[in-house]
Amino acid sequence: MIKAYAAQSSGAPLEPFEFDPGPLAGDEVEIDVESCGLCHSDISMLDNEWGFTQYPFVPGHEVIGKISAAGDKVTNLHVGQLVGLGWHSGYCNECQTCNNGDHNLCASAQPTIAGHRGGFADKVRAQAKAVVPIPDGVNPDTAGPLFCGGITVFNPLVQFDIPPTAKVGVVGIGGLGHMAVKFLNAWGCEVTAFTSSEAKRAEAIEMGAHKTLNSRSDSELEASAGYFDLILSTVNVKLDWNAYLNTLAPKGRLHMVGATLEPLDLGVFGLIGAQRSVSGSPVGSPATIKTMLDFAALHGIEPETETFAMSEINDAIARLREGKAHYRIVLKNS
Amino acid sequence: MIKAYAAQSSGAPLEPFEFDPGPLAGDEVEIDVESCGLCHSDISMLDNEWGFTQYPFVPGHEVIGKISAAGDKVTNLHVGQLVGLGWHSGYCNECQTCNNGDHNLCASAQPTIAGHRGGFADKVRAQAKAVVPIPDGVNPDTAGPLFCGGITVFNPLVQFDIPPTAKVGVVGIGGLGHMAVKFLNAWGCEVTAFTSSEAKRAEAIEMGAHKTLNSRSDSELEASAGYFDLILSTVNVKLDWNAYLNTLAPKGRLHMVGATLEPLDLGVFGLIGAQRSVSGSPVGSPATIKTMLDFAALHGIEPETETFAMSEINDAIARLREGKAHYRIVLKNS
Repeated sequence: MIKAYAAQSSGAPLEPFEFDPGPLAGDEVEIDVESCGLCHSDISMLDNEWGFTQYPFVPGHEVIGKISAAGDKVTNLHVGQLVGLGWHSGYCNECQTCNNGDHNLCASAQPTIAGHRGGFADKVRAQAKAVVPIPDGVNPDTAGPLFCGGITVFNPLVQFDIPPTAKVGVVGIGGLGHMAVKFLNAWGCEVTAFTSSEAKRAEAIEMGAHKTLNSRSDSELEASAGYFDLILSTVNVKLDWNAYLNTLAPKGRLHMVGATLEPLDLGVFGLIGAQRSVSGSPVGSPATIKTMLDFAALHGIEPETETFAMSEINDAIARLREGKAHYRIVLKNS
Repeated sequence: MIKAYAAQSSGAPLEPFEFDPGPLAGDEVEIDVESCGLCHSDISMLDNEWGFTQYPFVPGHEVIGKISAAGDKVTNLHVGQLVGLGWHSGYCNECQTCNNGDHNLCASAQPTIAGHRGGFADKVRAQAKAVVPIPDGVNPDTAGPLFCGGITVFNPLVQFDIPPTAKVGVVGIGGLGHMAVKFLNAWGCEVTAFTSSEAKRAEAIEMGAHKTLNSRSDSELEASAGYFDLILSTVNVKLDWNAYLNTLAPKGRLHMVGATLEPLDLGVFGLIGAQRSVSGSPVGSPATIKTMLDFAALHGIEPETETFAMSEINDAIARLREGKAHYRIVLKNS
């Protein structure tokens, strides 16, 4: 039996929930959960904001723990190994997208918390292919958030071959944005933090931003016309996207990793004149997660976290809902 | 004196118009106009649709002719040489963008028909840097439209390193789209022509499309979900862009070269889930124009044109306004 925390309906508090996961599949591993990050998408799913949540719902998709059992076909991991599990707990491994190494874009990828039970539990299972070892030099106590928030902001740097000479803006200095600032600083880029919070401006500089820009100031946006090679938006609210487009240099890219629900009302001339792009991406593939962990280890990058006991899960959710998390919450099993 | 055709006000007929261009600048050449393509953007400018037309307005920015005079600083061209001139008649040649070879994105680039007099004339002037020799193997009688319409659809293939293995859709089989089909066929791509015209479907196949798709059929769009690596939109009307996004494969790009005035109401999830991009671009740099001309010469690619005498300019404009041009109009001086 797996002892988890589940919501029985949309927005309900999490309560202890036991289930029998059945026999371990040949390609799966079982992980003894040591800790699990709490991500904003856990709350979006808890509230069925995206319309595909199944209840009882066990959130948690930033898992760190040790392999406790491995299926008989697993060759890439072994019992006792320290690993992490993120947004995806499996892939089809057979489609062109998987064969290209883009497992994160596989149309049949299995989300860890949709149609599958997540990491707010004593154990969690996943396809071994979706589980990535934690290298030396990565602190397991804070590594959970790298597996969803971290890879979401790291992956675009790999996907678009962002050069260290790029001028990059990060919109929203929160759970995702603060990790983007740290990664981009180590990547060699000139980093500008876009935030409307005075407190976060100072913290962004401490975390590696070279400049800050008030994200709600029309005049500051106008003064940056044609400046940025990349703007990484981590927010899920509607902004004046055409004003942001205007801050992009020729060939610049506005890249969305924040799941804003309102359509982008983009003017075509803002794209055509300076050959700009607007794009989005989800998390990364297992190979890119490994690349990120190695980069984080080399540069000593770790998320800023607050730690709660797993039993305090509802307090943690309340804190995240109130926007008070600084910057990311990790729940620890005792 | 230069003998041109000019409109005195928005939408007015073109009338003979003589002007003294003054002394030739050191970095300029003067071209004896042999022919000049008529582009839809000549009409947009004639009608002041984009708000920056200056009258008397001399349209024409797809010029083919011979150099009749060269300024004393011109080293790349010589009198008597057969050349072409497109949307831009000059660049600052000093900014980072120009230094990077992206003259077409220079913020100070001089449009041939805005604040400058265009090619519906016996002579036209331009900075030598913006003028490109016509190589052997390119038919000068039909080459004019390559200099705006042609380069507009060719340039994205170069900019985004489109591989010959890409599956590409071309939306709108008109002045730009028909050249895109020809280039993409020679580029090695699988080409699908999106059009709602039965007649154009057959012609698109003749010009090199491998398939056609009814651009107004929801069911045909749905049946192509996840298929295209690149969709090149040449239309200037509003389409259901989210339905088009949905036809893109993982990492696919919807690229706009048609100057649609209505904002793109793009859903962010359609970008994020499959790491898709939406982008736009204008014409190309002189270097890319040369690359295009060499490619066209190698593959025997030429625009489909109808020829009018320069004195029939108003008839030609009326025909293009009525959507009857098949596919591109060239005006010839006698």
